[in-house]
Amino acid sequence: MHQGIATVSLSGRLVDKLPAIAAAGFDGLELFDNDLVASALTPREVAARCADLGLGIDLFQPVRDVEGVAPDRFGAVEHRFRVKLGVMAELGATTVLCCSNALPDAVDDVDLSAEQLHRLGDLAAEAGVVIAYEALAWGRHVHRVGQAWEVVRRADHPAVTLAVDTFHLLSRGDGPQALAGVPGDRIGFLQVADAPVLEMGLLEWSRHHRCFPGQGALDVAGVVAAVLEAGYRGPLSLEVFSDLVREAAPAVTARDAKRSLVFLEDQLATRLPAGSPAREVVTASPPAAARVDPAFVELAASPGADVERLLEALGFVAAGRHRSRPVALWRNGGAHVVVSEAPAEAMATGGATALGVVAPPVADVAARAAALLWPAVDVVRSRGEAVLPGLATPSGLHVLLSAEPGQADHWRGDFAALPPGATGGLEAGGAAGAGWVGLDHVAVAVPPDLLAQEVSFHRTLLGLEPGPVEEFVEPHGRLRSRALRPASGGLRLVLNAPETAAGAPRRRGVTQLAYAVTDVRAEAVRLREAGVPLMPVPDNYYVDLGARFSLPDEALADLRAHGLLYDRDTDGGELVHLYTAVLSTGFHVELLERRGGYAGYGGASTHVRLAAQA
Amino acid sequence: MHQGIATVSLSGRLVDKLPAIAAAGFDGLELFDNDLVASALTPREVAARCADLGLGIDLFQPVRDVEGVAPDRFGAVEHRFRVKLGVMAELGATTVLCCSNALPDAVDDVDLSAEQLHRLGDLAAEAGVVIAYEALAWGRHVHRVGQAWEVVRRADHPAVTLAVDTFHLLSRGDGPQALAGVPGDRIGFLQVADAPVLEMGLLEWSRHHRCFPGQGALDVAGVVAAVLEAGYRGPLSLEVFSDLVREAAPAVTARDAKRSLVFLEDQLATRLPAGSPAREVVTASPPAAARVDPAFVELAASPGADVERLLEALGFVAAGRHRSRPVALWRNGGAHVVVSEAPAEAMATGGATALGVVAPPVADVAARAAALLWPAVDVVRSRGEAVLPGLATPSGLHVLLSAEPGQADHWRGDFAALPPGATGGLEAGGAAGAGWVGLDHVAVAVPPDLLAQEVSFHRTLLGLEPGPVEEFVEPHGRLRSRALRPASGGLRLVLNAPETAAGAPRRRGVTQLAYAVTDVRAEAVRLREAGVPLMPVPDNYYVDLGARFSLPDEALADLRAHGLLYDRDTDGGELVHLYTAVLSTGFHVELLERRGGYAGYGGASTHVRLAAQA
Repeated sequence: MHQGIATVSLSGRLVDKLPAIAAAGFDGLELFDNDLVASALTPREVAARCADLGLGIDLFQPVRDVEGVAPDRFGAVEHRFRVKLGVMAELGATTVLCCSNALPDAVDDVDLSAEQLHRLGDLAAEAGVVIAYEALAWGRHVHRVGQAWEVVRRADHPAVTLAVDTFHLLSRGDGPQALAGVPGDRIGFLQVADAPVLEMGLLEWSRHHRCFPGQGALDVAGVVAAVLEAGYRGPLSLEVFSDLVREAAPAVTARDAKRSLVFLEDQLATRLPAGSPAREVVTASPPAAARVDPAFVELAASPGADVERLLEALGFVAAGRHRSRPVALWRNGGAHVVVSEAPAEAMATGGATALGVVAPPVADVAARAAALLWPAVDVVRSRGEAVLPGLATPSGLHVLLSAEPGQADHWRGDFAALPPGATGGLEAGGAAGAGWVGLDHVAVAVPPDLLAQEVSFHRTLLGLEPGPVEEFVEPHGRLRSRALRPASGGLRLVLNAPETAAGAPRRRGVTQLAYAVTDVRAEAVRLREAGVPLMPVPDNYYVDLGARFSLPDEALADLRAHGLLYDRDTDGGELVHLYTAVLSTGFHVELLERRGGYAGYGGASTHVRLAAQA
Repeated sequence: MHQGIATVSLSGRLVDKLPAIAAAGFDGLELFDNDLVASALTPREVAARCADLGLGIDLFQPVRDVEGVAPDRFGAVEHRFRVKLGVMAELGATTVLCCSNALPDAVDDVDLSAEQLHRLGDLAAEAGVVIAYEALAWGRHVHRVGQAWEVVRRADHPAVTLAVDTFHLLSRGDGPQALAGVPGDRIGFLQVADAPVLEMGLLEWSRHHRCFPGQGALDVAGVVAAVLEAGYRGPLSLEVFSDLVREAAPAVTARDAKRSLVFLEDQLATRLPAGSPAREVVTASPPAAARVDPAFVELAASPGADVERLLEALGFVAAGRHRSRPVALWRNGGAHVVVSEAPAEAMATGGATALGVVAPPVADVAARAAALLWPAVDVVRSRGEAVLPGLATPSGLHVLLSAEPGQADHWRGDFAALPPGATGGLEAGGAAGAGWVGLDHVAVAVPPDLLAQEVSFHRTLLGLEPGPVEEFVEPHGRLRSRALRPASGGLRLVLNAPETAAGAPRRRGVTQLAYAVTDVRAEAVRLREAGVPLMPVPDNYYVDLGARFSLPDEALADLRAHGLLYDRDTDGGELVHLYTAVLSTGFHVELLERRGGYAGYGGASTHVRLAAQA
């Protein structure tokens, strides 16, 4: 499909936006009038730049409040429209977006609107231009796509077509079925945008919180599929207003935008019947991972840093040493941690922490990453080492694609067993780790402005499904948190975006490793005996726990005695867990025991943890 | 009145909040249960700290979802309530806030709710506690104060009273009249919070965007007056949840909160009939300024900096030199600028820019500033100099209170006329400045997180009334802007809070001086001839202007030829204006001509200016 993006979806000046759009591989753009008005480039210069960059000007937009106008004021509308048609002639643009009247004095009369659009259609046709008419979600009278279609139908003019915008359509509670009966050749333009579900005014929601497909929660693919099935074959164009893109560099946003269309086309490929005409125009990329499991976590540590002391205290044993780099493999039962030596200055910026995942087939996933423009990590590797395609997520976490156990390129082969000659040291845990099941989840700190992009990475490449955004109060700010899980496989990620005052330290990378154990109470006893500093739990917490859950006195006393946290879901599933004390880098370990199918992360205790860790 | 604040209104740990609340001069607090649960302090220790600090624990809150509960689950509620009564006994708190049931399975039955509150009332009475029952704005069935009162009335228990929260009441569209018929002795607690008018879900609005009285747009004083007139004599307590206070230091927020109550009591003093019992309990502070006019603007500049070159090019003449400090007085007709020499390093942090205002009576305003805890500026002055009480606004702007012209302490007396011996040089403009009327408005850059506090300063101390928040798109972010004007007098301030990416430069202080001139076109000619660099206006702007306003060709050509910007309001009032090119510090000058009562600031052109200045 011809892929485009609105200039308003990027920050910067128009002159900076054009090359960013071209560099990300778009075919065309929607030129936002305000971008042009504020630019020193003349329309002809803009047209020349776009031509040089291989970009079509798919749309000029918007011309507002053109219908439902009191007849005595329609002359001013015609004047305004004629001037803009003149600008479009210089641009060489042939589609103009007109959106439904949002003024308080708009006239509620479908026939008047249709007649006025018809008259503008005459002017447009004369200039070789087609109008695409859109229902703004906050239009005064026309605010649903069905209403806009009725106006277009009654206007009955070849130069007057319907514009479909997924945000406007879906935010009003409509779905793909709202387009039933609209012929594809009467749809003049298709704009796509996603958004998180937020309870706020439509205008505010639209102006500040749109996002790219796959970053929000709207059924964008459903609407796009319906438009394609209706026969529309024009551009697929992203129109995203948001506070985040206003502040991001245009080149970064353009790539982020482009990959959201890769994701969208994949969804369309799945959704549209094979062999159907609509399916033909959709290009699918190499598939996402079939299943995703954690292989190992790599932590950066300066030599002799407290993270290794913590691992040792937790019962981890150094099981291997990398054959060519200063990297150690630590293991405790089913839990693996790779600690790579990093200079102290690297640690200050978050260090190079990495997550090894088993996400077969590796070659496909790597190819998909390339199609999605996710940057490969440039790791210098020695000859003969495991080839782990590495990718940097937007927040800087490295994701290394490990092959399945038993395959030739398996990463364990890079390590020599410790002690030298030990057998099985790399594969099986020692006695101390008998109760350690393995990695339950990894918490990653992400700067707030990168959360949507980070979600997008894990979703589009690894196929992890994001849960809802949860919010917690921190002593010095707020924490937005989003958990992700694959449809198949055991990797769980929790992305934490702390919104704190400007001066507060900003963590990045892996801040918490959570391990599942078979008996967290026994672990608590063992760790206390071993002198491992644990996060103190306030006594008030247990008073509140007793109030909330009506726990038997003995059970409550037992949790309190062992400093364990507790949660219970509505189906009776239980979580019992503990945290180690936080290291200076913010890193800590959680041990947890899930009982009866408990699937959450103990959110009700999170404010207590955040206060204790402050 | 007994003044309090909820611990949730401040950031930090409980142990940090208590001294911050005491230091700001509050009498008591509402203890938020989550603050206690996450604290290592036991309830008895909290009680002891509060006693040491002279703070009463006016309220313990909240206990949620206690009524409208399916009868078979009410036992768990009683258990939970009993545990919390036990905590309250240790705290020595005697009022508990219970809020209306917000769970999806809440039962819609007023009599059931009343009966359940009655049963909890028995438990409370036994413990010497009074319940204050509040209608959460998003309660499942009880969400308006009238509904809550009906439940309390039917509960008919001396230990069950009504809690009034100005946000919950006003956000639902109710007003003071919603309390008609509620006896004051049945109101158990009064919580106050303001909020800007935002179109969003009530929960989101309440959790993230509450603010202190005077910072928002709700009729807080109206509700408080009604509560006092009903006979309520309990604490007046601030409960403000907001993203901003979550990130601010608790001591700063506590002061901000305290001064909002000063402002609120002033409003109450005006609103309540003199001599009425309710008026008796309200303490008014010294009055705000009767009228406010600009006297001068002081700009900091390193020696030989481009700001002085700009003033000179604009036609300003050095009219005086300060008798004891390296400060020059520049004048152009009715426009006065004081330039004080500042080292380059001071400039990097925004420099010491100040605004001199005539705001009589000075002594009262200075006393009011002290009552409001606004920090005085520590300026070392020589003997015999004008005593200008100086105040620092939250964003760091210095406001100097100048007396009225002709009074003994008038600031002009600090300056020696230039050239020495010249007569009238300090009072009247030269020929070049004949068309310069004087200062029209001053634009001040404010960090986004300080905008509410900055508005609060100008509103509470100088009596300036803020207009609505306007939003503009910048090439690299957004700009929130709020204009303020006094009820009487000529000072206009525009506070600009740029929300840009983390790395972008953050301006502070006076970024723009806008002068009214009698003939802006003549000024444009004169400045061009004098070689003053002006902000370039894109040609596209004029094409758009022609489209929007149907201006006669000649008028449009004239604006274009002179590089002037134009706006017209709905009553035909016109603004014609120009900007000088931006200096490296971000500073620039606007010249403007208001015609036919135009009262705005040319907002329709702001995006063009911001793009040109990027």
